[in-house]
Amino acid sequence: MHRTKVKVVEEALDANNTIATANRADFDRAGVRVVNFMSAPGAGKTSLLERVIADLDGVRAGVLEGDVQGSMDADRLAHLHVPVTQLNTDSGFGGECHLDANMVRSALPALPLAEIDLLVIENVGNLVCPAEFRVGEDARVMVCSVTEGEDKPLKYPLMFRTCELVLINKIDLLPHLDFDLDKLLYNLDAVHPDVERMLVSARTGEGIEAWRDWLARVAAPEGVHA
Amino acid sequence: MHRTKVKVVEEALDANNTIATANRADFDRAGVRVVNFMSAPGAGKTSLLERVIADLDGVRAGVLEGDVQGSMDADRLAHLHVPVTQLNTDSGFGGECHLDANMVRSALPALPLAEIDLLVIENVGNLVCPAEFRVGEDARVMVCSVTEGEDKPLKYPLMFRTCELVLINKIDLLPHLDFDLDKLLYNLDAVHPDVERMLVSARTGEGIEAWRDWLARVAAPEGVHA
Repeated sequence: MHRTKVKVVEEALDANNTIATANRADFDRAGVRVVNFMSAPGAGKTSLLERVIADLDGVRAGVLEGDVQGSMDADRLAHLHVPVTQLNTDSGFGGECHLDANMVRSALPALPLAEIDLLVIENVGNLVCPAEFRVGEDARVMVCSVTEGEDKPLKYPLMFRTCELVLINKIDLLPHLDFDLDKLLYNLDAVHPDVERMLVSARTGEGIEAWRDWLARVAAPEGVHA
Repeated sequence: MHRTKVKVVEEALDANNTIATANRADFDRAGVRVVNFMSAPGAGKTSLLERVIADLDGVRAGVLEGDVQGSMDADRLAHLHVPVTQLNTDSGFGGECHLDANMVRSALPALPLAEIDLLVIENVGNLVCPAEFRVGEDARVMVCSVTEGEDKPLKYPLMFRTCELVLINKIDLLPHLDFDLDKLLYNLDAVHPDVERMLVSARTGEGIEAWRDWLARVAAPEGVHA
């Protein structure tokens, strides 16, 4: 029975990849680069977007906000005057804990692809399933907060292994935590050697310029690719 | 198509509930009370167990550790000399982001039910799917860290709504955060009015006595029930 379940999972992922490829072709045709932005709940994805999304060296960015329900993050970004589209997984998608290629495909008609160069897809806060489902992205970025402990790369390796960039957020809290940054970096290199990583604080702004530059570079002709 | 998907999800949850009921009957027969312990990754579940699990006023406790892979949390608890059983969702279960009743059922033969009064099931770190799957528990406890922001009850309402107790952890960090505790409590009451809640710090020990007493009480004859 277990083998059957694994087979069903594999077939579902194959079907997802087919739709993700179609999404990516549509994004490419529109000249839009896409970042799949992932983390655990409360790691700081929206705060890190608020810091940079409206000021990317001339790159016109848009956001697709994925949530189980509600539009709190989209509302937070609204004042930045970048196009934000809300995608909820509980309306017709069974309250899924992640975005998949089909959900993103359903949102394509609502996205202003002609008006943007870069689309950031803020995934549902979850370190497991979002990593399993490509949605048509060029690159994957994940946020790992120093408040979450040093062991997360080892416990959720697929997420850390399939990213082009890891943002290590909330470093302003380091003086107040029993947290060994070297140990986190060691664990990170154990599952994804030499993956690009940045130490940032959405709260104080430390490290934010490097994150802004990276994101602007994704949309450049020679941009980052998965 | 969406309606079909929702129907499939409902049928899967019905099947899960049937197995959960069988698990609960087996736990009842063995005289073991069961707590389903849930949170986002890194909120502090294992640290909060380390603080209390070996010293529960004579209640003999065991732990079932749910993880996608690895046994890091079980290893952390090993020195406490309570029975700990590891359950991984990637071995035969497709790397699921939650425990379900069938996975817990598969672990039953490995659990020392005759030697314990209380079983704490530490679920996979995730605020979405664990809330959807009963596993045969008497009570649900969730941990919410103050580092995760005030909006989590509104973004993950099912998790907050189906718990008997919410542990608000890492309160030692409050002086260093832009965090409005009253706002969190307001949001919590919006989705689960008057649910029991405790302010705790696994790091400093603040509030831990109340958590210890609550957990010991679950195993008492007049214990907490879902």
